[in-house]
Amino acid sequence: MMKTLLLSSVLMFGGMSLRAAIQSKIVEYQQGGTPLEGVLVWDDAVSRPRPGVLVVHQWLGLTDYEKRRAEMLAQLGYVAFCADIYGKDARPKGVSEAGPLSSKFKSNRALLRDRVNAGLEQLRKSELVDPKRIAAIGYCFGGTTVIELALSGADLNGVVSFHGGLDAPNPADANNIKCKVLALAGADDPFQKPDDLAAFEKEMRDAKVDWEITFYGGAVHAFTQPDPGFSNPGARYNEKADKRSWQAMQDFFAEIFK
Amino acid sequence: MMKTLLLSSVLMFGGMSLRAAIQSKIVEYQQGGTPLEGVLVWDDAVSRPRPGVLVVHQWLGLTDYEKRRAEMLAQLGYVAFCADIYGKDARPKGVSEAGPLSSKFKSNRALLRDRVNAGLEQLRKSELVDPKRIAAIGYCFGGTTVIELALSGADLNGVVSFHGGLDAPNPADANNIKCKVLALAGADDPFQKPDDLAAFEKEMRDAKVDWEITFYGGAVHAFTQPDPGFSNPGARYNEKADKRSWQAMQDFFAEIFK
Repeated sequence: MMKTLLLSSVLMFGGMSLRAAIQSKIVEYQQGGTPLEGVLVWDDAVSRPRPGVLVVHQWLGLTDYEKRRAEMLAQLGYVAFCADIYGKDARPKGVSEAGPLSSKFKSNRALLRDRVNAGLEQLRKSELVDPKRIAAIGYCFGGTTVIELALSGADLNGVVSFHGGLDAPNPADANNIKCKVLALAGADDPFQKPDDLAAFEKEMRDAKVDWEITFYGGAVHAFTQPDPGFSNPGARYNEKADKRSWQAMQDFFAEIFK
Repeated sequence: MMKTLLLSSVLMFGGMSLRAAIQSKIVEYQQGGTPLEGVLVWDDAVSRPRPGVLVVHQWLGLTDYEKRRAEMLAQLGYVAFCADIYGKDARPKGVSEAGPLSSKFKSNRALLRDRVNAGLEQLRKSELVDPKRIAAIGYCFGGTTVIELALSGADLNGVVSFHGGLDAPNPADANNIKCKVLALAGADDPFQKPDDLAAFEKEMRDAKVDWEITFYGGAVHAFTQPDPGFSNPGARYNEKADKRSWQAMQDFFAEIFK
């Protein structure tokens, strides 16, 4: 009887502890002399090194949205690091500032790759992370960015783009790719140009990358984002596509981290 | 102590029982005067009504392949019914006989719909099945067929096409669709004509169907089929795409059967 009670107490404590143990800390780092500020998020109830997931922000920069996704990843048992691509002193206040910033990086893929690789290094060097099991996910601009991370030849297991802009300005670089690629897209995303999509698929195919793409019917741009920051029928939250894509990411992680 | 031993025995017995409880029976039925012969497969260890899954065969007709898939579905807790589209007396011996048979049904969609609906009725009337929770899956020719089942306005929760030929000879019928549609395709399937694919997507989009399509990179036709019955580099088993698509089906079932 005593043993039974003791067991129950431990289980209860364990359960409560798990729920309350999500921790985060701001991490200052830099790339090319530019100060950057990311956020590391993990579950303190897990003690051994575990897979790490880099989270790359949308065009509005690193916001509470990415931190919430990082918390969700920590609850799944991963260590998440929200990368800062734009810089500590370059936090756009709205879409009018986000446009030029995201364009600056999209038109300078070398710089974009350097910035995202700097974030990857911060994640990899955390003692909480198993450096052999690392993935990167990104939203919108961040989706484009994690594809660039793969194209840079970065050593990680996989990347997941959520409604990222897919194009292929440097298709030969696909031969550098060492990881698996999963793209999750809205079937009705008006910001996804058909020619870019075709170029991306050709790039993946020609380089024999381990890749996959899913299109969610009825979903437009930013389907995972309850507040895309601007009003446009082409960018809207879609609960079904949000849930399905989060599940698809988890299935992908189960495969690449096993 | 006695209670503990008793519990262990029950658990062991239960475990063995679960593994040994997959049952099947041949079901004779007919449509339009043509005798048909399907196979019902279920787990006898489950007692209450459960979701039913119709399994529609590839162009070679109802073979051990579909029965194995039905067993896998029964192990997941579903009742599976392997439909017979061609007829009890029309079992092709190889691809030379399969070609004309599959063409006959593909060029007569009304007949194809009648045949698959006859199979659906057999599944639905089983006392093992919860008639409010039914899906249909199909391979190659069977993938085309389950889309036709949806287009016919059949009352079920969802259909899953595995490397099915996707086209849209009767696009207006998409307005009849009452269920969710999931298409799982090889990104390099040479038997999937781009124009057919575009027509299918337009059909789904225009009718505002709840639909989704996934393309597996590096996968060609028949990627779930270890023995496609003929030698062609365009039809080949792909273990990764097989596993991923089976997982995608399970995620879809979790959503539509909840």
